[in-house]
Amino acid sequence: MESSIGIVTPQRMHFAEPLALQNGSKLAGYDLMVETYGELNADRSNAVLVCHALNASHHVAGIAADNPKDVGWWDNMVGPGKPLDTNRFFVIGVNNLGSCFGSTGPMSLDESTGQPYGARFPVVTVEDWVNAQARVADAFGIHKFAAVMGGSLGGMQALAWSIMYPERVGHCLVIASTPKLSAQNIAFNEVARSAILSDPDFHGGNYYAHGVVPRRGLRVARMIGHITYLSDEDMATKFGRALRRAEVMADGVKGDGNPPDDGYRFSFDVEFEVESYLRYQGDKFAEYFDANTYLLITRALDYFDPARTVGGDLAKALSHTTAKYLIVSFATDWRFAPARSREIVKALLDTRRTVSYAEIDAPHGHDAFLLTDARYHNLVRAYYERIAQEVGV
Amino acid sequence: MESSIGIVTPQRMHFAEPLALQNGSKLAGYDLMVETYGELNADRSNAVLVCHALNASHHVAGIAADNPKDVGWWDNMVGPGKPLDTNRFFVIGVNNLGSCFGSTGPMSLDESTGQPYGARFPVVTVEDWVNAQARVADAFGIHKFAAVMGGSLGGMQALAWSIMYPERVGHCLVIASTPKLSAQNIAFNEVARSAILSDPDFHGGNYYAHGVVPRRGLRVARMIGHITYLSDEDMATKFGRALRRAEVMADGVKGDGNPPDDGYRFSFDVEFEVESYLRYQGDKFAEYFDANTYLLITRALDYFDPARTVGGDLAKALSHTTAKYLIVSFATDWRFAPARSREIVKALLDTRRTVSYAEIDAPHGHDAFLLTDARYHNLVRAYYERIAQEVGV
Repeated sequence: MESSIGIVTPQRMHFAEPLALQNGSKLAGYDLMVETYGELNADRSNAVLVCHALNASHHVAGIAADNPKDVGWWDNMVGPGKPLDTNRFFVIGVNNLGSCFGSTGPMSLDESTGQPYGARFPVVTVEDWVNAQARVADAFGIHKFAAVMGGSLGGMQALAWSIMYPERVGHCLVIASTPKLSAQNIAFNEVARSAILSDPDFHGGNYYAHGVVPRRGLRVARMIGHITYLSDEDMATKFGRALRRAEVMADGVKGDGNPPDDGYRFSFDVEFEVESYLRYQGDKFAEYFDANTYLLITRALDYFDPARTVGGDLAKALSHTTAKYLIVSFATDWRFAPARSREIVKALLDTRRTVSYAEIDAPHGHDAFLLTDARYHNLVRAYYERIAQEVGV
Repeated sequence: MESSIGIVTPQRMHFAEPLALQNGSKLAGYDLMVETYGELNADRSNAVLVCHALNASHHVAGIAADNPKDVGWWDNMVGPGKPLDTNRFFVIGVNNLGSCFGSTGPMSLDESTGQPYGARFPVVTVEDWVNAQARVADAFGIHKFAAVMGGSLGGMQALAWSIMYPERVGHCLVIASTPKLSAQNIAFNEVARSAILSDPDFHGGNYYAHGVVPRRGLRVARMIGHITYLSDEDMATKFGRALRRAEVMADGVKGDGNPPDDGYRFSFDVEFEVESYLRYQGDKFAEYFDANTYLLITRALDYFDPARTVGGDLAKALSHTTAKYLIVSFATDWRFAPARSREIVKALLDTRRTVSYAEIDAPHGHDAFLLTDARYHNLVRAYYERIAQEVGV
């Protein structure tokens, strides 16, 4: 694996002061995993916070020091000479509370019981994450971010930042996101959660004590997710109705070398390529992701609705913001379709904010926000050049 | 419950001659459950076969004699004075092989072992069903159907009938269907099957012997299905982001009468109305549907592809048909979108068949084919009036 940013090492930041959560409880002292790229300038004006989506982490770019195969999830976007250029900007990635990549979450020891939190970990929200991230900014002495940026659930965090801490956000980049989930979005999350909650190995969320993980539920949850990340067209192009024939052995060697048999096998084993892809994605995910975290993060998605406390009026929710906005959507994204981004744009215009909007005609569905696309990357690059001029870097 | 057709009783038809299946095996003697409505005329020219989709049965219309709450699944379409008028036509419903409503399937005793077939029941296909239905027609002395009709998977059977028995089909009505599943369609089926196959109570398909059913897997499978049956818009209209607050007790009485609390509860229990709906649908389904049947029927869907043996050329596959066609799609159906129906229409036109096509602007997604809609029903009614004139009834 390669990355222009080279090898990176995260830091664990401890926060001793309890954090008041949206659910009314307080989280006692907690840790956050943080990774940074580039250099913070003398007046601390060049910091950019990158917020992660469901299964990602603080490891935004570069190669993990402890695993040369582990390249950051937005390495094509962040680095020297990349659209978010670390020669100019100081970029921070934070693993959110409740996640499973080192920050305090359900797998962590609850010091009050000496056991992992498990099901007792509080149901955290996008707003809770933003408050926790604000303390990270404080620790770095950053009063105002040049930009807060994220895709999907990360975009929700960026949007919430601009509402909750208007004076601390110069620019807000919201990519492939939505101002709130639709009923269908919630429905997909609910099915994924049901698969986990009903797995006998879930044990009410306290599976750590039983030495098992609800692997079957997680696997199905991830398979469902993957369908919503890809566009119908992209699946058709990648897999179509092609049959899975050239068997690949565990060691990566191809099967018996016989010509592929083009007949059906009349079984429930993998028959089509798309089945093989989904099973692989599901199995891989179940190896590394924590089920309680999956529940928490999908619930944070469901709950996000910044207009909810102001009668559903998104423009009103945005009326005290001071950031400038870049909103980006992808034409074939049916999870958070362009129409959802346009709701944000309309609300911003209704309340007379400064907003740029682009809909990228990429074929890759929701996943497009993570992929390399010249039109998309050039747009983000140009936007950051404007920010660089503003902050003088 | 009411039905203009009144009380109906199915008949069990036994077929002693083994049936050659597409997978190369033969099914020994088998039973099919059959229900009929109206009277077969003297020259046996007024028969219509109605083919069912995933979870339906032979019980197309009327009230089941053994359960006054059990109204047939297409009772709004079939009956005296209905679009398919049983005062004129003799309508036959057949529960397909492998289903779980009385026809021979995985739950049936395999006489060669004295045990239920379970996982040993053969993977049957749309074409196998059509061959089995042809024997039902033979038993009634029906050489040619005035029409074969079906929605969704039922539409595939109608299409297959017109290809496999061209001289036996006068008209072919294919509603909310597709000439083959897309990769995304297969993906949804695969996730549903994975939920069942990975349920510890599945026992490799032989759960009957263990006195359990893979209820958790079936439940998740059905929840996934329901998302694909409804349109995004319909879900938004029906549920939106409404919170589930007025608790309904098991006896149907509403909860404590307190005004609904509009705050989040920060849990993974039912929070939104759409979650309540999905869980209810999943639970209900898991009570009555057989998991092995679910696997079989989703696989029959995956495998259906009549153009496959002629190089993917659907027009060629249809070139020996003699039926006239009515193809109907629904604007908001994203499971089998109008574009999929138009593929059938285009292939029929390319091979110079007679075809009528209508796209109904109904908001209810794939489920629209089962619902009452005046435009849709008037269209089908008019089409059957034409058929009635042709056959002189």
